[in-house]
Amino acid sequence: MRIAVVQMRPAFGDVEGNARRAVSMIESERADLYVLPELALSGYLFESKEEATSLAQEPSDPVFDEISEAGRSAGATVVVGFAEKAGEGLYNSAILLAPDGARFVYRKVQLFAGEKDIFEPGDEPPRVIEVEGVRLGMMICFDWIFPEVARTLALGGAQILCHSANLVLPYCQDAMVTRCIENRVFAATANRVGGEARAGQELTFTGMSEIVAPDGEVVVRADVESEGVLVAGVDPGRADDKQVTPRNDLFSDRRPEIYRL
Amino acid sequence: MRIAVVQMRPAFGDVEGNARRAVSMIESERADLYVLPELALSGYLFESKEEATSLAQEPSDPVFDEISEAGRSAGATVVVGFAEKAGEGLYNSAILLAPDGARFVYRKVQLFAGEKDIFEPGDEPPRVIEVEGVRLGMMICFDWIFPEVARTLALGGAQILCHSANLVLPYCQDAMVTRCIENRVFAATANRVGGEARAGQELTFTGMSEIVAPDGEVVVRADVESEGVLVAGVDPGRADDKQVTPRNDLFSDRRPEIYRL
Repeated sequence: MRIAVVQMRPAFGDVEGNARRAVSMIESERADLYVLPELALSGYLFESKEEATSLAQEPSDPVFDEISEAGRSAGATVVVGFAEKAGEGLYNSAILLAPDGARFVYRKVQLFAGEKDIFEPGDEPPRVIEVEGVRLGMMICFDWIFPEVARTLALGGAQILCHSANLVLPYCQDAMVTRCIENRVFAATANRVGGEARAGQELTFTGMSEIVAPDGEVVVRADVESEGVLVAGVDPGRADDKQVTPRNDLFSDRRPEIYRL
Repeated sequence: MRIAVVQMRPAFGDVEGNARRAVSMIESERADLYVLPELALSGYLFESKEEATSLAQEPSDPVFDEISEAGRSAGATVVVGFAEKAGEGLYNSAILLAPDGARFVYRKVQLFAGEKDIFEPGDEPPRVIEVEGVRLGMMICFDWIFPEVARTLALGGAQILCHSANLVLPYCQDAMVTRCIENRVFAATANRVGGEARAGQELTFTGMSEIVAPDGEVVVRADVESEGVLVAGVDPGRADDKQVTPRNDLFSDRRPEIYRL
């Protein structure tokens, strides 16, 4: 199968424009799975919870119809980050749009910095979703620094970590290599480029979207500033083999009775 | 305090010679903590459990008196890997020799490849040992690939991971950067150099012993083939600050109720 990471530069507040941009980037390269950045429709630096709410969607929002259709017409799955409105609640979420029309939402468990003023953290364990025989896990940005998140997905059977991000610290892209090696999974990290100067802050997003293999090989990695779609052909079945040596299966070698977590 | 990683090339089977070499390397550079490689006294590729037993020691063995004395005369702690004889049992262990004469042993929890034919795995959680106000954790080589081992030590309060290794895969040195970032601790990985061709196998050890800071900075890293002692001055108190942003404490942000491990 072909995995695409879509490295884009959303314009703050322009939900419709960002969705159109996402659709055109999806249509520019053929793949079976497209991973887009965190908060790709709204932008990142909200002035207030009210502003974020005004740029948030429910999973049934028509904006996802357009994006879903772009994927479905190619038989592909799309994962994209968005601000999720759920009753009174607001979450930093990613939605998985399957080719059969099904939609699944993951709510970011580990909120970063000022996000804590805007969003509620997700309260559900990250979950594995099987789409046409491939087992996908969703995680969002800062989730990366907690090894427990990727581990939960991998132990749950995920073959590919779909990792939507708005990274500003310099660590994650290399750390995802470790996440892949320790879990023997693929990871597709789709990061933003560009910057935002709002709400008394200025952030530059670090790009370098990447697809990493279970042996830690960085199959593709984007640059720090350009929009673009990077594609890699992968065999997700490689992630079912947890052997790092003929005598070491990384999952059956685990010793949960010894760990103190 | 000053941490030293001792990158050495033990000669297989020459316990006394390797101990002398260890002492002379310790005496060559002033430090407060010396970390030496895994199985630094015996060598690595045993033909049989019997051979390993013949090259194993109990923690009270006089060979540790010499090594301990080299550290104690400088007021320093030494951590060194050895084959541990314990009744009928044989473990791949590291011993911590404190300046006050106390000795603590850690038995490797995660055995690598053919080690499973020679050693029993450790059955105790890795433990944190406080020496003169500094909290040290011991882990051995392949323990690195299981994030749970370093996590157990860090959650237990370890400020410095004393990591004795005989690395042959190419991943660990970079992965230890992730271990430090995710746990906000120091790590001192002391690896072997050289090779062994015995027991129908040929291994080349990868050197690159290193000391890594809680922000992932590689403070020192050795080359792939030379013996040597690398020293870094560090403030272990840095490892008590788990804040990666003013709003993110990596330990209090953890959500164990969400993880499925």
